Amino acid sequence: MKRRITRYVDGVPEGVDDILVEEAPVELRLDGVPIAVLMRTPGHDEELGLGFAITEGIVIGPHEVAGVRLSDPEAGDRYDLELSKGVVVDPEQFRRNLFTSSSCGVCGKASIDAIRVTARHVQEGPHLTPSLIQSLPSAMREHQEAFSESGSIHAAAAFDPAGNVLAVREDVGRHNAVDKLVGFLANESWPLEPAVMMVSGRISFEMVQKAAVAGVPVICGVSGASSLAVELGEELDMTVIGFVRGVQFNVYCGASRFP
Amino acid sequence: MKRRITRYVDGVPEGVDDILVEEAPVELRLDGVPIAVLMRTPGHDEELGLGFAITEGIVIGPHEVAGVRLSDPEAGDRYDLELSKGVVVDPEQFRRNLFTSSSCGVCGKASIDAIRVTARHVQEGPHLTPSLIQSLPSAMREHQEAFSESGSIHAAAAFDPAGNVLAVREDVGRHNAVDKLVGFLANESWPLEPAVMMVSGRISFEMVQKAAVAGVPVICGVSGASSLAVELGEELDMTVIGFVRGVQFNVYCGASRFP
Repeated sequence: MKRRITRYVDGVPEGVDDILVEEAPVELRLDGVPIAVLMRTPGHDEELGLGFAITEGIVIGPHEVAGVRLSDPEAGDRYDLELSKGVVVDPEQFRRNLFTSSSCGVCGKASIDAIRVTARHVQEGPHLTPSLIQSLPSAMREHQEAFSESGSIHAAAAFDPAGNVLAVREDVGRHNAVDKLVGFLANESWPLEPAVMMVSGRISFEMVQKAAVAGVPVICGVSGASSLAVELGEELDMTVIGFVRGVQFNVYCGASRFP
Repeated sequence: MKRRITRYVDGVPEGVDDILVEEAPVELRLDGVPIAVLMRTPGHDEELGLGFAITEGIVIGPHEVAGVRLSDPEAGDRYDLELSKGVVVDPEQFRRNLFTSSSCGVCGKASIDAIRVTARHVQEGPHLTPSLIQSLPSAMREHQEAFSESGSIHAAAAFDPAGNVLAVREDVGRHNAVDKLVGFLANESWPLEPAVMMVSGRISFEMVQKAAVAGVPVICGVSGASSLAVELGEELDMTVIGFVRGVQFNVYCGASRFP
């Protein structure tokens, strides 16, 4: 998705056109029963449905699948896994990854609407400066104990508006690192003090969602943000920043926090 | 986790000690009902439980949680989310990320046992060479259309034993990229021809699981592999290779495929 962003280089903002990775929900159904909602990049969706059915052990091979078909284009991206004749599977056994909110439908709009309900009110602040943002990756890395050992673990860090590290949590799972961080912060004070969150990887819809629900107004990543992540952040008046590397970073939305 | 691995540099193997990121399942329960099994790095588990409850919208703040407690150390890593008095939540509404196999318990051993049942028989081949492995990242990158646009998308690629690209799939989600790839391959032939899979990120338990269930004997990653990923790969006679960068890579298990 093409988007106008603000790129900071050496503290100087410039509006540039950028391309975001597309992210949108797709619902998979088995015999009409929703078994999974996946946040995915649109395209090759029939293959996604077949591959998911195989690698999750729902079927033992492609011969057990008669087809993967878009069920109702009007209702968003819903695909039906049609099993071959004689193949019987209990869909309930495989229900997973379903969104927790029953109001959360299968289009980006509905997903964003559902999050808006649970997201906390985001403060106007904190005010950001380019030097603050540039300092985050190395400050996070300094506190990453497991990374220096294995070179391969995700991290999430929280900073106060002055750039002081509040906590860093590491985990093999991106979302777990964020959840551990939020759990720590919530034990310290609630609602959370205005904080800036930094994550080691990509910024997906779910990462922004978790920050939003916890009430964190600013989320930064070493890598880029997806289309839906930015749409959600914009909707909730959050600041989403990606590719924080050296003296450069991209502000996808919420640039008004830079005075 | 400390582990003896085989590091190839310029085609020359050497046994070295390496440290893997720890990965192990934890089960979260709400009022005694299992609501999630997360693959996580052990540590800060009470914070993980609290943060998960908040960011997934199960509770609106830490005051709704009386405690997160290890329920039965004998039974593995199970944590109970105890809600504060008067807080009523329907656990069924939040059941997610549960493993599909009912036999899959909450310890690495049980998880591996459960996968062994559905994993396909892994062939002895293909035979690997250092130059084949070294060629994979650039070959994958050449076929990544979306990456060159956004610089921020996951990829999974399949190669035949001669190193020819069979397919590359990209997605904002790591697992989706693998599922799309498996869906494509399964449409071409089944059982799959002996193939080498390359992924753009870390190799977690779930990545090896998906490769195993699809019958892919070799999985390589640009980044490292977790402890449980390697244990599963070893158990199933797979070859797991990480940090494929330049003329160097780490073989975590299944080094015997290099003649």
